[in-house]
Amino acid sequence: MKIQTQIPVTAYKAAGFIGKYQQLVRDAVIPYQHSVLWDKAPDAEKSHVAANFINAGKALRGEDTADGFYGMVFQDSDAAKWLEAAAYSLAAKPDDALEKQADELIDLIAAAQDKDGYLNTYFTIKDTDKRWTNLLEGHELYCSGHMIEAACAYYEATGKRKLLDVASKNAECIYDRFITQNVKGWPGHPEIELALLKLYRLTGNEHFLELCRRFIDERGTDPSFYAQEAERRNWTVWGSNPWDNDYRQSGKPVREQSAATGHAVRAVYLYTGMADLASETGDSKLFEACRRLWDNIVHNKMYITGGIGSTVMGEAFTVDYDLPPDTAYSETCASIGLMFFAGRMLENEVNGEYGDIMELAFYNTVLAGMQLDGKRFFYVNPLEVDPGISGTACTHTHTLPVRPKWYACACCPPNVARLIGSIGKYAYGESADTAYCHMFAAGSVSFSNGLKLECTTDYPYDMTVKYAVSGNGRLAVRIPKWSKSCTITVNGSAFSQTPENGYVYINVENKADVQFIFDGTPLFVRASCRVPRLVGMTALMRGPLVYCFEGADNGSVRDLRIDRSSVPTVCDFDPDFLGGTVKLKVKAQRITDCGELYSSEQEQSTPCEAAAVPYCTWGNRGENEMRVWMNVCNTKETLNKSSNSLQNVV
Amino acid sequence: MKIQTQIPVTAYKAAGFIGKYQQLVRDAVIPYQHSVLWDKAPDAEKSHVAANFINAGKALRGEDTADGFYGMVFQDSDAAKWLEAAAYSLAAKPDDALEKQADELIDLIAAAQDKDGYLNTYFTIKDTDKRWTNLLEGHELYCSGHMIEAACAYYEATGKRKLLDVASKNAECIYDRFITQNVKGWPGHPEIELALLKLYRLTGNEHFLELCRRFIDERGTDPSFYAQEAERRNWTVWGSNPWDNDYRQSGKPVREQSAATGHAVRAVYLYTGMADLASETGDSKLFEACRRLWDNIVHNKMYITGGIGSTVMGEAFTVDYDLPPDTAYSETCASIGLMFFAGRMLENEVNGEYGDIMELAFYNTVLAGMQLDGKRFFYVNPLEVDPGISGTACTHTHTLPVRPKWYACACCPPNVARLIGSIGKYAYGESADTAYCHMFAAGSVSFSNGLKLECTTDYPYDMTVKYAVSGNGRLAVRIPKWSKSCTITVNGSAFSQTPENGYVYINVENKADVQFIFDGTPLFVRASCRVPRLVGMTALMRGPLVYCFEGADNGSVRDLRIDRSSVPTVCDFDPDFLGGTVKLKVKAQRITDCGELYSSEQEQSTPCEAAAVPYCTWGNRGENEMRVWMNVCNTKETLNKSSNSLQNVV
Repeated sequence: MKIQTQIPVTAYKAAGFIGKYQQLVRDAVIPYQHSVLWDKAPDAEKSHVAANFINAGKALRGEDTADGFYGMVFQDSDAAKWLEAAAYSLAAKPDDALEKQADELIDLIAAAQDKDGYLNTYFTIKDTDKRWTNLLEGHELYCSGHMIEAACAYYEATGKRKLLDVASKNAECIYDRFITQNVKGWPGHPEIELALLKLYRLTGNEHFLELCRRFIDERGTDPSFYAQEAERRNWTVWGSNPWDNDYRQSGKPVREQSAATGHAVRAVYLYTGMADLASETGDSKLFEACRRLWDNIVHNKMYITGGIGSTVMGEAFTVDYDLPPDTAYSETCASIGLMFFAGRMLENEVNGEYGDIMELAFYNTVLAGMQLDGKRFFYVNPLEVDPGISGTACTHTHTLPVRPKWYACACCPPNVARLIGSIGKYAYGESADTAYCHMFAAGSVSFSNGLKLECTTDYPYDMTVKYAVSGNGRLAVRIPKWSKSCTITVNGSAFSQTPENGYVYINVENKADVQFIFDGTPLFVRASCRVPRLVGMTALMRGPLVYCFEGADNGSVRDLRIDRSSVPTVCDFDPDFLGGTVKLKVKAQRITDCGELYSSEQEQSTPCEAAAVPYCTWGNRGENEMRVWMNVCNTKETLNKSSNSLQNVV
Repeated sequence: MKIQTQIPVTAYKAAGFIGKYQQLVRDAVIPYQHSVLWDKAPDAEKSHVAANFINAGKALRGEDTADGFYGMVFQDSDAAKWLEAAAYSLAAKPDDALEKQADELIDLIAAAQDKDGYLNTYFTIKDTDKRWTNLLEGHELYCSGHMIEAACAYYEATGKRKLLDVASKNAECIYDRFITQNVKGWPGHPEIELALLKLYRLTGNEHFLELCRRFIDERGTDPSFYAQEAERRNWTVWGSNPWDNDYRQSGKPVREQSAATGHAVRAVYLYTGMADLASETGDSKLFEACRRLWDNIVHNKMYITGGIGSTVMGEAFTVDYDLPPDTAYSETCASIGLMFFAGRMLENEVNGEYGDIMELAFYNTVLAGMQLDGKRFFYVNPLEVDPGISGTACTHTHTLPVRPKWYACACCPPNVARLIGSIGKYAYGESADTAYCHMFAAGSVSFSNGLKLECTTDYPYDMTVKYAVSGNGRLAVRIPKWSKSCTITVNGSAFSQTPENGYVYINVENKADVQFIFDGTPLFVRASCRVPRLVGMTALMRGPLVYCFEGADNGSVRDLRIDRSSVPTVCDFDPDFLGGTVKLKVKAQRITDCGELYSSEQEQSTPCEAAAVPYCTWGNRGENEMRVWMNVCNTKETLNKSSNSLQNVV
């Protein structure tokens, strides 16, 4: 039923910009996170992740568990996400030592699995009677989902079955409870839905498709479910309100939902599973719901950086057009989940918008989540930082001006690692006769339809993307919406085609050299008047990169008023600046009298040049001001005059 | 020691704008609130205030208290604030029925007083053993403070002593505990400090001065005090954190404090007591602390509307320059408290800034708190309302787009009523030989120094203020900072004087007719670049009135860009518009394409005229958009060119 599918992780070998990030993950993130799992990282909070699995194994064998369980109820998922990231790293570059570390952890996990397939250290060490009594908060299905994803990745990367067998047995245990015994319930934190579909595709076991469908079909059919569940038990993890169905997208059946609500990560994980199931089964009602939810996010609730979830209160979506830059939550994991969602939507419908959003989220919020040295991470990605307020005022304690050390709740760092390691699955796709290029990722790809390609590009800093394609079929390449023009050559000759839903299709017989030159002219971007917080302001983009203005380059950023009538200067790529990047310069006015709190005196200003850097590089030079959305000094802009229409891309 | 003092409430008879508001309080607010106290208002939540006093009396007599205590721990203060407002109303206009209602309530209060003078229905009905065990949350001293204020007002207005005797006995009971028995402690919610000074001045009883000084001197000397208190008891009202000293201004001794912190109402009530004590005793260290706190509020933490307290989290101050317009808390009571503080600062130092802020808070936030019909009230006074977000998004549930019905926690409505009833105390002051005019309030004043004046003005809509003065001495009139020029005539002749600390002084022998014409040219006002949320925006003021743009006059307000280079039009006073007001019109551009969430297309706009109304009248025409701070379409403004200097006022 799928229009096109993701490629196996082994099919893409990264180079260029992506290759550099994969190497950073391999060299910095994975080893550091391994030391965290084993509580050997000197500057991180205790995680106890490996120790929890050791103790769960002991508990099953009736041995003394010594220091018991420690951490969040979903602590196991850190091990799973690390294994998934390690698997992708092994797929890209074999590493005996890393594989040994992974196998060692897998042995512990296998030993912590109960004989019926149940797998969760919290409920195995602490109180086996509490199993399955708290779907609202217990995260058992969430942790199982991540372990299933890790198992699929590790099998895909290494061919080793041990974790896949553990995960399958665990999934059968869940199947037994919810299908065979027909116990009512669905996950408080969606995640297992998308994982079960991966497991189904890899194993062919129809149980896993059936279980996924059950969780998705039953969700929200009874808004009192969590409250009834809460009444039946005498314990709680956090005292969560079981009636807050919006928070966990369970207020009505998923096919009736239209507005993205609640915890943003839960939302996009759920929608990912829904979109995946829709493409797997050809369920058009389910796809329509996905499309409504996608539209609601992308056209009403998304930051220009591809960030989602406007508020720290529940790490959640709020209402349409509520997009405060300074108090944004915009969790790194939520943008990763948005990429997941976009990727699965592409399996239902080839449409350039999904790739547009995928690369927007990736190059901006996801990459901003990680420090350039791979050692520190943002969970929260504000679009404005005001030292003295950000991270300080009680309303801004979540918007830290610099990336903090590894948290005890380590959801984002390993999520960034596994996303970067598997980026080929989002950049490329395939159908029986077509190789799809959704994002512009340098490296080589071998499609199972026989097509191969070598992509050469310095994207996102250079706008030339070359494909050396071999095989027979079609090359389908997304033309980004931001590119106001596009020059295409095929084997050196000009090529012209009106894009179809954002893609051009080029027939390949045996071999073809294809080149795209996108329009890298910086663009001033404005928000709809419906967004109260962004009224009258401008952002600056070049290609997929959102730029920001930092104090390190500009002194006070709040004093600047950008001249939208000027044409920004694109500086040369500087390999020594912020890990290698391209700076933009724009004409501006600097307000020179900022004294009194309120003044009716005429504002004094002096012309100046303001420098902008990619948002994904912000916060790497210590605490300073940062703004994506800037005030302007001239609204009669003459820039951006060329048509945005892509009807005549040549 | 006082430089100048407030006048008795009976000394000022209001006319004009103030008179109209006093009549509204008399006709609408006081009767309605009386029905609330007695649970006879059909559309209000149950208050049980009178019933609590009845039941407390029964409890003391050993009778069955039937329905016991109901309401907040500080429910008694509603009765006190109503009595105070009723007293001021009686001072302005005798009313037998109202006086009978007041006397009836006073009888209940007297009957609810324990034989040792203790007076609090919560602790008398519910559990006498809990008395004085929870200064952190119990509000006993707060309720006593309000009752003392009511007693002073009722005695001042009617000459009746019964409530004054009750309050004095209650104050002696408190004196006995904290001074005679030397029990350590200070109020969790400051208020009694300023009340004790009123009582001291009226009775001459030095105990009350001593007790006030004790509470102020001891406050913050031991940051562990509330925590120790909490350890000694086994009950709580709200589970408040006893270590959050910033919230209740008790982290360090008051003379060492420099930053306004915590709950804004508590803060300004405390600072009012401090300033009052400083002027009473000539305590220069205490005054210096007041001046630092004043400066911190007025120059770093105050909205342009005279609103204070930026966040709903604790109804509190946050950090310097954190002044979000859309999520502002800006409680009506806090601006009333700011006026109290300003009034007491004037007793230490005659300085125009205090009057500037006093009238800013009064004409904007305080009056905005009340619907034009006197029937509904805002507690929260945002500077921006965006329907769909305001009152709806989880971060904006407190910023209601229209005034709600009377709350169970009815702090603001009676506070507005008592402030308006006693506005003469803030508008006018006196010293041995001088009549001070701090605000421009139509009506007649008889000063105890023998001077009398009749003030005739249609202020704040007309900028001409006439004084007919009789007696011998000086007339001191504040020249508002916003008035860029001022024409003064004395007995028809031009008068010129360089203002001294914002005041001009005119000698009066026998009789004088003095006229001031202030500059009512509308002014565009900008905020300091240090305020992140107000960067590049403009507000519009005329005289003391901040204007706002509402949907009712403009359609979508977010589409408008104000042309700061234009000169606003001052419309004629319209007696039928918003209770009688003056509208302003300004040139603007209207953005006509607000479609996509983000767009790089050039903005389309069309010239238009935008209408602004006084902020104090907003929200009287149903739910609609409202903005004080507007975006601009031309920053090269030429308005406001005239000097703001008042060195040469003529």
